[in-house]
Amino acid sequence: MTFVALYTINNSARSIARLCQVSRSAHGTAEFHSFVARYSTLRKCAFLPGGKWSFTRAITRQMSQASPGRISLGRYGRGVFLAAGAAAVTGILTAGVSHFQRAEMATKVSKVEEEEGDIRERCKSFMSLPVTDIKVLEQRKDAMSTRMEMLIMETQAAFCRALEEVDGGSFRVDRWSRKEGGGGISCVMQDGKVFEKAGVNVSVVFGNLTEEAARQMRSRGKVLKGKDGKLPFCAMGVSSVIHPKNPHIPTVHFNYRYFEIEEADGSKQWWFGGGTDLTPVYVDLEDATHFHKTLKKACDKHHPKYYPDFKKWCDNYFYIRHRAETRGIGGIFFDDLDSPNQEEVFNFVKSCAKTVVPCYLPIVYKHLNDSFTPEEKDWQQVRRGRYVEFNLVYDRGVKFGLATPGSRIESILMSLPLTARWEYMHEPTKGSREAEMLEVLRNPKEWI
Amino acid sequence: MTFVALYTINNSARSIARLCQVSRSAHGTAEFHSFVARYSTLRKCAFLPGGKWSFTRAITRQMSQASPGRISLGRYGRGVFLAAGAAAVTGILTAGVSHFQRAEMATKVSKVEEEEGDIRERCKSFMSLPVTDIKVLEQRKDAMSTRMEMLIMETQAAFCRALEEVDGGSFRVDRWSRKEGGGGISCVMQDGKVFEKAGVNVSVVFGNLTEEAARQMRSRGKVLKGKDGKLPFCAMGVSSVIHPKNPHIPTVHFNYRYFEIEEADGSKQWWFGGGTDLTPVYVDLEDATHFHKTLKKACDKHHPKYYPDFKKWCDNYFYIRHRAETRGIGGIFFDDLDSPNQEEVFNFVKSCAKTVVPCYLPIVYKHLNDSFTPEEKDWQQVRRGRYVEFNLVYDRGVKFGLATPGSRIESILMSLPLTARWEYMHEPTKGSREAEMLEVLRNPKEWI
Repeated sequence: MTFVALYTINNSARSIARLCQVSRSAHGTAEFHSFVARYSTLRKCAFLPGGKWSFTRAITRQMSQASPGRISLGRYGRGVFLAAGAAAVTGILTAGVSHFQRAEMATKVSKVEEEEGDIRERCKSFMSLPVTDIKVLEQRKDAMSTRMEMLIMETQAAFCRALEEVDGGSFRVDRWSRKEGGGGISCVMQDGKVFEKAGVNVSVVFGNLTEEAARQMRSRGKVLKGKDGKLPFCAMGVSSVIHPKNPHIPTVHFNYRYFEIEEADGSKQWWFGGGTDLTPVYVDLEDATHFHKTLKKACDKHHPKYYPDFKKWCDNYFYIRHRAETRGIGGIFFDDLDSPNQEEVFNFVKSCAKTVVPCYLPIVYKHLNDSFTPEEKDWQQVRRGRYVEFNLVYDRGVKFGLATPGSRIESILMSLPLTARWEYMHEPTKGSREAEMLEVLRNPKEWI
Repeated sequence: MTFVALYTINNSARSIARLCQVSRSAHGTAEFHSFVARYSTLRKCAFLPGGKWSFTRAITRQMSQASPGRISLGRYGRGVFLAAGAAAVTGILTAGVSHFQRAEMATKVSKVEEEEGDIRERCKSFMSLPVTDIKVLEQRKDAMSTRMEMLIMETQAAFCRALEEVDGGSFRVDRWSRKEGGGGISCVMQDGKVFEKAGVNVSVVFGNLTEEAARQMRSRGKVLKGKDGKLPFCAMGVSSVIHPKNPHIPTVHFNYRYFEIEEADGSKQWWFGGGTDLTPVYVDLEDATHFHKTLKKACDKHHPKYYPDFKKWCDNYFYIRHRAETRGIGGIFFDDLDSPNQEEVFNFVKSCAKTVVPCYLPIVYKHLNDSFTPEEKDWQQVRRGRYVEFNLVYDRGVKFGLATPGSRIESILMSLPLTARWEYMHEPTKGSREAEMLEVLRNPKEWI
């Protein structure tokens, strides 16, 4: 079963169109299901048979045969399937279409890909109303800021629902506003059954950047010239860190964000950034492979170099220099992404955001009932300490947050674990599973 | 009973001499003893009657009457008494002495004040041999770098012995060297009976500063011009953080350090820095008053403005900006101190270093057997989280360490507690003792 998707890439002044024939089975969704199906003896490990969308049927049937239990992915399930299908593209270039035809194709595909229905209707599934007034969003529904705000709200809801499903607990939802402009919605589940601390945060802020904050934002030498030292900006994103209780369930982090900034000459710069990365306490080759494979498939739909480049960037970024070790086993990370064009980068970010649940949840279910020793718990706590070190010493997001006046500190620092430990001169025994983990962190490897 | 001490102050090109008539009873030692005596029912709470030095007898007699137990301050006891006596001065100025006479007086007093006996003999009481070879120290025994290294080694030993005495455990002693030059001695007691983590570190390092490290060192606009971007330097200091288990025993931190740095034109800059500050989990007015009073008395011997100025500096420095609260209830903090002259600043630093035990140990003994609830322990853990935040985000010493190639990370980060906690949106109940603590941290107060 195959279908055809069309979309355009506008790189500076020129446009090219791609005719993309894709096979659904080649993409992340099936991979996700097959992974979950293998751990079907765990509670809640199956999918509702008979999806609403015909092209998902084969998958759900496959799952329902394998799994006696039940998992409801709710809205997200639909999102994942659509993203994995409609947004999937290969790199086949097509020529011979006019500029007009290209634009027309782009519009059609955009609608399919983005699943942009009625804004008011979509808001119903969110954890809270969006930060921006719904009327304003409706008025400027084609603006990137609106489309991105809807995406981050949807991502937050989908991930929170999936975590609630596995934990049995509920997220506390805090809406907050920032007197300088904007606000956010912080969802936190603390001391749950499965999760020690789970935070999923959305923020949409605007105002003027201080010079210190601007310095924190610069990546890859991006020059930002302010008027009288001030830079009007708009920044929005969804970010999350999940710290489970069981040391065999890894910590996950993701963050997808969009920036608009106005320079002294009135010109606007925009860019996207983000990534998803995993921080296990112990090496589990299967988990690592699943995680990276799922990310690679989301990346490959957009550019064959995205995964290798952003995987490397991730290893470099999440590096605790003073320990000479990475924070975890990586994933993808990118920043300042502003090419080939806004539409394509947005679609890529959307693919990534919709890959969070299939990247992580199967791993959670797999280890849900793993037993662990006090020593394993201690090692987890030591690793949590390193997590804190990275976040407070190096993380640009945290630095940006701490330096931005009016930031909501509780939302920025919700990424810190509930508990952490610093043992003087902790060094795992040679040949132990702890030493194996450290070896991987000291020498990042290719997982696929 | 009074005695006379003389010393000189050399401020730039001019020298002034002070004739100082001091009353022993006006200084820190008696205060320390009286504080301890009041908690004489606690184990180990008394002093050996009959001190070796006649001028301490009145004090020890007073203590022995009050206390049935016994405490041995070892070498430090002697040091404290001598410092509180001989180094104590008031601000009475005397004129009419020649330049030669002044210098002669300075030499005599220096010997009395510094208790600078045979280097090899003094080294016997240290936790380890000094970082610098003893022969080298003997060859340049009058150099400030030698005198400071001896002082920091002595301070480390005295504090460690006092902590071992109260805990019953022993310090692990690690000697380490730095391939770029120098090394250190780290003493750590972890998971003891009284102390969750106690670290007392000495380091003596030299080499070339990177630009990043130089940036971290600059305070108050000190301009450091390097030759080809390099700044040959020598830095040494003793630093310590003690995290007790019982939430009613505060965390203490002190650090005394000396820097020499060579600029591009070959001129040398030197300065001292340091401070001692207390981080309680609950407000105890008596503890706070004792702590600050003891520091004030050490400061007042040298300059009446030292305590008020350095107390304010401490409140400003140990400020967690993103939380809008101080780390603790302060103490003293100073940096870049290079006037009136090297001799006087060194004597001041020595007074401070010798005040650490009398500042802190009485408070430890007082609360040794205080009972506590799980909720109080939780609040301690939350405060520990804030401690971590300060140390990793703002502390200049940590930043300097992390940015200095070849630093020993375990020694720099031994200041982090064994365990810490981050609760989302933690806010103490109105009127609680936790809220009382927060109020003080949000609005630093004068304790004496």
